[in-house]
Amino acid sequence: MISCKGDLKTDVAVGVVKNIAELDEAISKAKPGDNIVLANGVWKDVQIKFLGEGTEKSPITLKAETPGKVFIEGVSNLEIAGNYLIVNGLYFRNGYTPTGNVIAFRTSEEKVANYSRVTNCVILDYNQLQRDNDDLWVQFYGRHNELSNSYLAGKTNGGPTVRVDLKGVQSIKNYHKIINNHFGPRPRKGGARGETIQLGSSFTSMSPSNTTIANNLFEECNGEVEIISSKTNFNEIRNNVFYKSEGSVVTRHGNYVTIDGNYFIGDGVNEQYGGIRIINTGHWVTNNYFFNLKGKSFRSPLAVMNGIPKSPLNRYNQVTDVVVAYNTYVNCSAPWQFGVGTNIAQADVLPKSEIRSARAIRTTVANNVVYNDKGLESIVVENDKADGVLFKNNIVDNQGMKFKDFDSGIIPASLELKKVSENILIPIGLPSDVEAYYGFDFETIENDLFGNSRKDSKSIGAVVGADFTNPNILDKSKYGASWYSNEIKAIDPVTHTVTKSEELQTKIDAASNGDIIAVAEGIYAISKSLVINKTLTIQSKGKAQLVFSGASNTPLFSLQPKGKLTVNNMILKGNASNYAFASLKENMSNHFGLTVLNSEISDFNYVLRAYKQSFSERVTFENTSISDCENGIELSEETNDRGDYNTEYLTIKHCDFNNVKQNVVDYYRGGYDESTIGGNLLVSNSTFTNCGAKEKNKRLFNHNGIVNVNINNNTFKNNNVKFVSILWGAKNNVESENTVINSGQIKTEENLVMTLMY
Amino acid sequence: MISCKGDLKTDVAVGVVKNIAELDEAISKAKPGDNIVLANGVWKDVQIKFLGEGTEKSPITLKAETPGKVFIEGVSNLEIAGNYLIVNGLYFRNGYTPTGNVIAFRTSEEKVANYSRVTNCVILDYNQLQRDNDDLWVQFYGRHNELSNSYLAGKTNGGPTVRVDLKGVQSIKNYHKIINNHFGPRPRKGGARGETIQLGSSFTSMSPSNTTIANNLFEECNGEVEIISSKTNFNEIRNNVFYKSEGSVVTRHGNYVTIDGNYFIGDGVNEQYGGIRIINTGHWVTNNYFFNLKGKSFRSPLAVMNGIPKSPLNRYNQVTDVVVAYNTYVNCSAPWQFGVGTNIAQADVLPKSEIRSARAIRTTVANNVVYNDKGLESIVVENDKADGVLFKNNIVDNQGMKFKDFDSGIIPASLELKKVSENILIPIGLPSDVEAYYGFDFETIENDLFGNSRKDSKSIGAVVGADFTNPNILDKSKYGASWYSNEIKAIDPVTHTVTKSEELQTKIDAASNGDIIAVAEGIYAISKSLVINKTLTIQSKGKAQLVFSGASNTPLFSLQPKGKLTVNNMILKGNASNYAFASLKENMSNHFGLTVLNSEISDFNYVLRAYKQSFSERVTFENTSISDCENGIELSEETNDRGDYNTEYLTIKHCDFNNVKQNVVDYYRGGYDESTIGGNLLVSNSTFTNCGAKEKNKRLFNHNGIVNVNINNNTFKNNNVKFVSILWGAKNNVESENTVINSGQIKTEENLVMTLMY
Repeated sequence: MISCKGDLKTDVAVGVVKNIAELDEAISKAKPGDNIVLANGVWKDVQIKFLGEGTEKSPITLKAETPGKVFIEGVSNLEIAGNYLIVNGLYFRNGYTPTGNVIAFRTSEEKVANYSRVTNCVILDYNQLQRDNDDLWVQFYGRHNELSNSYLAGKTNGGPTVRVDLKGVQSIKNYHKIINNHFGPRPRKGGARGETIQLGSSFTSMSPSNTTIANNLFEECNGEVEIISSKTNFNEIRNNVFYKSEGSVVTRHGNYVTIDGNYFIGDGVNEQYGGIRIINTGHWVTNNYFFNLKGKSFRSPLAVMNGIPKSPLNRYNQVTDVVVAYNTYVNCSAPWQFGVGTNIAQADVLPKSEIRSARAIRTTVANNVVYNDKGLESIVVENDKADGVLFKNNIVDNQGMKFKDFDSGIIPASLELKKVSENILIPIGLPSDVEAYYGFDFETIENDLFGNSRKDSKSIGAVVGADFTNPNILDKSKYGASWYSNEIKAIDPVTHTVTKSEELQTKIDAASNGDIIAVAEGIYAISKSLVINKTLTIQSKGKAQLVFSGASNTPLFSLQPKGKLTVNNMILKGNASNYAFASLKENMSNHFGLTVLNSEISDFNYVLRAYKQSFSERVTFENTSISDCENGIELSEETNDRGDYNTEYLTIKHCDFNNVKQNVVDYYRGGYDESTIGGNLLVSNSTFTNCGAKEKNKRLFNHNGIVNVNINNNTFKNNNVKFVSILWGAKNNVESENTVINSGQIKTEENLVMTLMY
Repeated sequence: MISCKGDLKTDVAVGVVKNIAELDEAISKAKPGDNIVLANGVWKDVQIKFLGEGTEKSPITLKAETPGKVFIEGVSNLEIAGNYLIVNGLYFRNGYTPTGNVIAFRTSEEKVANYSRVTNCVILDYNQLQRDNDDLWVQFYGRHNELSNSYLAGKTNGGPTVRVDLKGVQSIKNYHKIINNHFGPRPRKGGARGETIQLGSSFTSMSPSNTTIANNLFEECNGEVEIISSKTNFNEIRNNVFYKSEGSVVTRHGNYVTIDGNYFIGDGVNEQYGGIRIINTGHWVTNNYFFNLKGKSFRSPLAVMNGIPKSPLNRYNQVTDVVVAYNTYVNCSAPWQFGVGTNIAQADVLPKSEIRSARAIRTTVANNVVYNDKGLESIVVENDKADGVLFKNNIVDNQGMKFKDFDSGIIPASLELKKVSENILIPIGLPSDVEAYYGFDFETIENDLFGNSRKDSKSIGAVVGADFTNPNILDKSKYGASWYSNEIKAIDPVTHTVTKSEELQTKIDAASNGDIIAVAEGIYAISKSLVINKTLTIQSKGKAQLVFSGASNTPLFSLQPKGKLTVNNMILKGNASNYAFASLKENMSNHFGLTVLNSEISDFNYVLRAYKQSFSERVTFENTSISDCENGIELSEETNDRGDYNTEYLTIKHCDFNNVKQNVVDYYRGGYDESTIGGNLLVSNSTFTNCGAKEKNKRLFNHNGIVNVNINNNTFKNNNVKFVSILWGAKNNVESENTVINSGQIKTEENLVMTLMY
């Protein structure tokens, strides 16, 4: 475990401070060795500036009276500057920062912190009111600072959760440490700028950072395609656990990063869980373990990208001088992909400065072990030729299936799996006649995944030997704040029965997260929007009918932050001018959700209207009929062309659409960004009749820029449009088994001209 | 003095080897501590591969029997691979390498040298036969190698004299040392690729090199605009002397270079002597001394360039985080220039990816001293605003002339100069109330120019205190090989008198370098070209006349490698089909030269024809009449558009041109390259009559792409052309006081569309 605690004298209490005035006073008087103690309770709307000059042996500490009982809420933040300062035990929740960061290691451009630490803290759901208001939760400046043993989760707005900033010589060669933290779930953001950790930026990509990210647990960090975006030099990413996280560790800019001894754990199903994506020069990927990852292409366990020749500063440099050694891959769908992101085929629609044609060179892949319980067609997927790569002494059990062996650099073998824990299965029984290849500087790979010495061992793969101790990588008590756990006891949902209109909102308000509102059979007149701000199911047995007479352009169900609604077996009727479902127009500080099952929806202006800056991870309609509406499902307000969109998954199955006049399906993502690989539209086994009559662009489905589209087994009949859909051929847009009668056609355009995001 | 000699055991002689077979045998058997001794004499056409495994205490040495008496000649080279190898005392001359390098620290892509040293050697005029055959004289690979106490001079062909190569992980973080060498005159190359030392390339500009260049003397290193081109990271350039060298130390690519304690010495006249040119991030320019430098713009003592926003890898990154501190500038014309290379005005003719509009940011200029014996209008020349630069506590004696002081960051003062040596005059008497500014990390600037400690000193400028010892920076015995000196005793030229035609070539052959051929009055019939391959003057008192009847397209004077001819007071006549002067068509392995004074030239096909890949530093015609020739002065064969040209200076003064039908002046440089700032055409006080009749493009003078053009005080009369000249307004092309009668006009075009070189 890495730490800079040492032999500290931190036990001189200055007394408990009870408000910001007392706190400021205490800070201004603090001497080395002082403890400033924040009284338990809620500290609302406080901007704390912690300036001080501690010493190595006698730091100044700002701590909670009881760790976890000091709540920083409202419009609040913390800035730290000086030397040898420690912050311990604070809990940020129910609010957001008035500045660009919740915790910053500086108080002004000149005054940065050095040798300072934030530890044992929690930041939870501390989101700006609007998704496009980007901020950071922890922003590093200066040198030798640390974020340790903290829990951060629930960031929904734009901006990495943690960023190391290098602008200015005070912040280079910083040797910061981000260690022993628990990065809890970060929901899909629906576009870029959702990294969990970013180290520098392309503008500082020439700078030495020397930041260490070690021994952290990343759990469901799904914000975007990059979990860690390393953009500077000489960083070390060691011994972390990436658990069911929809993204990758990416060496986006900068060079000479060490990625050693990490665990990447998938579930064998979800294709969004990634591994390590490599760009640039001189990285070493060693001793890592990859399990049950189904990601491909950008999200492969090892994705080596093509570069742009003489790339601009903010684009893709060629991969050179990379070493991938002593890693183990178990049951991954595409362990190694090279030439990822090659886009030579799109030369017609992209400027020359965007064409990634420079293949990896002077790259070595050696001493790795791959085990597949089902044989793969290729061990190495060559999106472009891997002819600049030296493969040496890699051992693969591909269940006897043949594969390209790169001059015998990949050697077939028959291995066994030895179970160390539920997610760690180690291939053993490696052929004794194949010794590890000894490449240049390989003697610097001193230990294996479990920390055992490689000295005197010729062993291949992430671990030496065959006698293993369970490292308990998912024991959450090893990570984050000592006083906080994100493990929630399962509680059986309570069912609240509604028999009268006026009970609906009151029962909804009284219900707890996860509860069920059971509506008795009958017709309910509703005149005011029902507010949904928690996870709820509203259902009936006999198709209860809600008739909404609310004002024009107001929704029957107002889907507010954290409002995740399931409607099951209901009939919803409007007055032609109002909506069935809508997000708030603004201040959607957290995501909503919507699932509609076995229901009937009719006579609305909009079925669903998602406003700009609102986001739902999923929007699902199943076994539902939608008829006589002016507009259908509207998810197209993110028109800034920065890669953002309103839902990750829009799913329509076994539904009937009839007489929906426009925006039947309107789903938009704008901005060219090869690594925004989101937006998912599935429409299957549904019928569309007499729809799209008022659609201005004569397309029934609009899904411009959505990367994954699957339209299958539907029937389109008498829709007065020119196209049911125009698919984006270069991306994952497909259709099959559709019946199109008097409804135009389904067309595929290979390339889509889009605005460049950079 | 830096060295890695230590306590070595190198006295085990293996016996003297006399030929390559014996040498190979000895190398193959060498053990740590062995000395392999090359017998004195000429080793011709030898390719030496010195492979071995010495140890730190017992290296293997390959040495001359007597240092300087072992001549490596002909088509020869030396390659070194292994560990702890030393090469001592060899003299490379009279030949060229068959490969891309004369001395390489590797024998194959895999086998490099480490901890090895080439010392006490000389490489002189060891040039390829053709200028465009690029090579290197010393090419570094591997790690911890050294070139020390050697003398290298006279490289005329393309390619840096010394290059450190970083392709491949074996060669990064190399800590090579280039120390105590004497880099003797390198003639102007006439275009790019004439650096004395290059560290890496743009393709390895992200790599840490950590190369040290220290304690070297650079004397007349005039190859091109960059003497040292640093293209990688973390290099150190310390305590070198740049003496009358037409170029700069340039941080061309890469970052975090230290340039400390160097001397840049000019002559107060030549505007080509440069200083330090800055591109990219994080460089520290400290403790340097600049004297009598008249360079401006790219060649300023400090030239800080504008960058290209999001620059491509091989172009110009923005300057950020640079520190310029504790330097002293005495009698320099433009000590500090910012925004150098801004070309926003040329946006119409250049692609966007060439526009340098990004100004320096986060840059500090502090604690410097400037002394000017004549006040300057500006201390800081802002080609673009220096608004991202912090000026602090700089002291300037500008003889009372006012200047912009950047928020009092530049403080006027009245100083005195104290003479330490002929070229070192130190301003003293600094105001005692101005103390050094203490910037971030300034404590790392530990010593001053003379190596004295800065500890406890608040002193401003390159030196602490006022009591100085002469560092004898131009004592050549401190640099280069112990057995070699480039100091030549002046010998009075011998005059050889010629009275008969047949004596001409024999006397030329018998003459020594610098001698005079005195031709007696009379007419001399010459039927065969006279070969000139040394420095000679051919003159007469009473205008002796040489009548050349040689074959068509052969020259009266064949200007061969090293043939530098002055013709004075002669009459030269041809037969209309032959030439007065010409270079060889090929194998111009060294430069020629031509000066024609007080002469008459007539009836030739060409006055001068310089063939492709030939080069003369100067071509001069003065007080000479040129008449009745088909072609004039032809210097336009470098049409590859890589920035090359055939002469650095073409000077025509007080001449009469009459009936020269085409190519009156034809001088060409092609290829857009902002830092090739060469080609100089001066035409003054001359008359041109009835010329250019056959000129296809209707221009009397063609000088496309020549950067410096000055046409003044001439008379143009009855020349049947449309333009006398088309000047390139964006560059230094000017005309004045010309009389143009019936000869078209002189026109200026601001921008010239050129081929990009990259």
